[in-house]
Amino acid sequence: MSYFLGIDGGGTGCRAAIADGEGRIIGQGAAGPANISVETEGACANILAAARAALQDAGHGHLDELTAVLGLAGANVTAAARSLRAMLPFRRTRIVTDAVTAATGALGGGDGIVAAMGTGSVFAVQIGGEMRQYGGRGFVLGDEGSGAVLGRALLAEALRAEDGFAPMSPLLQAVLDELGGIEGVISFGFRARPAEFAGFAPRIVTGDDPAAERIFAGAVAEIRGMIDTLQAGRDLPVVFLGGLGTHYAARLQGLWRVRPPKGSGLDGALHLARQEA
Amino acid sequence: MSYFLGIDGGGTGCRAAIADGEGRIIGQGAAGPANISVETEGACANILAAARAALQDAGHGHLDELTAVLGLAGANVTAAARSLRAMLPFRRTRIVTDAVTAATGALGGGDGIVAAMGTGSVFAVQIGGEMRQYGGRGFVLGDEGSGAVLGRALLAEALRAEDGFAPMSPLLQAVLDELGGIEGVISFGFRARPAEFAGFAPRIVTGDDPAAERIFAGAVAEIRGMIDTLQAGRDLPVVFLGGLGTHYAARLQGLWRVRPPKGSGLDGALHLARQEA
Repeated sequence: MSYFLGIDGGGTGCRAAIADGEGRIIGQGAAGPANISVETEGACANILAAARAALQDAGHGHLDELTAVLGLAGANVTAAARSLRAMLPFRRTRIVTDAVTAATGALGGGDGIVAAMGTGSVFAVQIGGEMRQYGGRGFVLGDEGSGAVLGRALLAEALRAEDGFAPMSPLLQAVLDELGGIEGVISFGFRARPAEFAGFAPRIVTGDDPAAERIFAGAVAEIRGMIDTLQAGRDLPVVFLGGLGTHYAARLQGLWRVRPPKGSGLDGALHLARQEA
Repeated sequence: MSYFLGIDGGGTGCRAAIADGEGRIIGQGAAGPANISVETEGACANILAAARAALQDAGHGHLDELTAVLGLAGANVTAAARSLRAMLPFRRTRIVTDAVTAATGALGGGDGIVAAMGTGSVFAVQIGGEMRQYGGRGFVLGDEGSGAVLGRALLAEALRAEDGFAPMSPLLQAVLDELGGIEGVISFGFRARPAEFAGFAPRIVTGDDPAAERIFAGAVAEIRGMIDTLQAGRDLPVVFLGGLGTHYAARLQGLWRVRPPKGSGLDGALHLARQEA
């Protein structure tokens, strides 16, 4: 009898599920963070803890019997993924990014396009079981339409408005006041990490403020263009993921077959694990 | 008899000039870097060395007789400017940013708009001897049209082209090859300082490459809009400074009275020093 382990791990925690050969989930577990590029050994410990908890939940089985697929934040750092892989006791181990497992889970193995719009952004196209990833190049040079990029655009617009280069708006004025005026915005801009820029995104996507709406409408148009490129004339279903996913889905509804995700990143990891067999 | 000292100091060196009450330059000197936010005491030593050399060149006079205006990179860091001011032996000392002295020298005291387009960008409007600065908010949130911002846009476009989101061009392909493909571009993007991004600017402003031309044309349109805002319906002469200044001047010639700079940053510092008296 074959058992399959799926792991979905990121900066806040790590979830594990064990499925049998029919794909039925027979055990689940959870543990602490598993961002391997930040701390590989700590991630390894948490992955094992989550896997052991899932085995205990299932009531039988051993780590070295499992065919495992791990979707992990930071797995694009090849050296870290290799060193983690060497530490793990599973029968077979495949490590992919959490973006891959999230997209696989969202499409449930079917053809489609996934647009993950969170603090960063990344796209995936799956056709005939083959998945390819696009975008996701990070805060400085990419991550189009992401919360961090939207937040940075809001702060830049606040500075332009203070100089008269753009119209002032209630949200721009509020952001200037909160961060301590021009100097405060500039110094926040130099020190803030992407997640801190993304903290402004929820107030940008509501459509309440004219400056925010201009920024979000621009991002929606950009994402529309990128998804049109990925469609390449096809009519693939489109699934939006991430904290901003529903906002993009609402704006872009009707252009393509916009669908809710079929499953989670953990479902995606299990799906890939069963393919490994 | 009153003597005036002008200092123009930045990251690469520091120049000094001494003028008499009629504005005639009677002595000049130079020394090492004077970016006070980087190293205040070293900047102070170089400023004094340049001033002493200028006095020696003039053949008479003493440091404590001079009314000095210093245009210095990093002078917008208020604490550093205050601590430098306390170290200097001049009769009167005023410290401003090198952007202020450059703009003053460029306009020679007359009304006008200065657009300084270098690694960063900053604008100034002078009317009736009153100067106000605009923009110049730094690489992360501002510096519109600057070499660093153009270079960053080029690298982002190279990544988009590699994904099929934008047309590939010879320059985009060359940049990808030089930096080691997608991974190389991303890692350059995370570690590079503004001056390194700006290193790509000379190849962007030539008009030879379709992708570069799209990026530069967008920046030209943005700078045109900003200068239109600063004109506010007036017809002030416009002076472009900085390494990219002539490229913007060539594209925007004819929209306003585009003029060459009347003088240097050192001239601007001397001009302000004589106003101090």
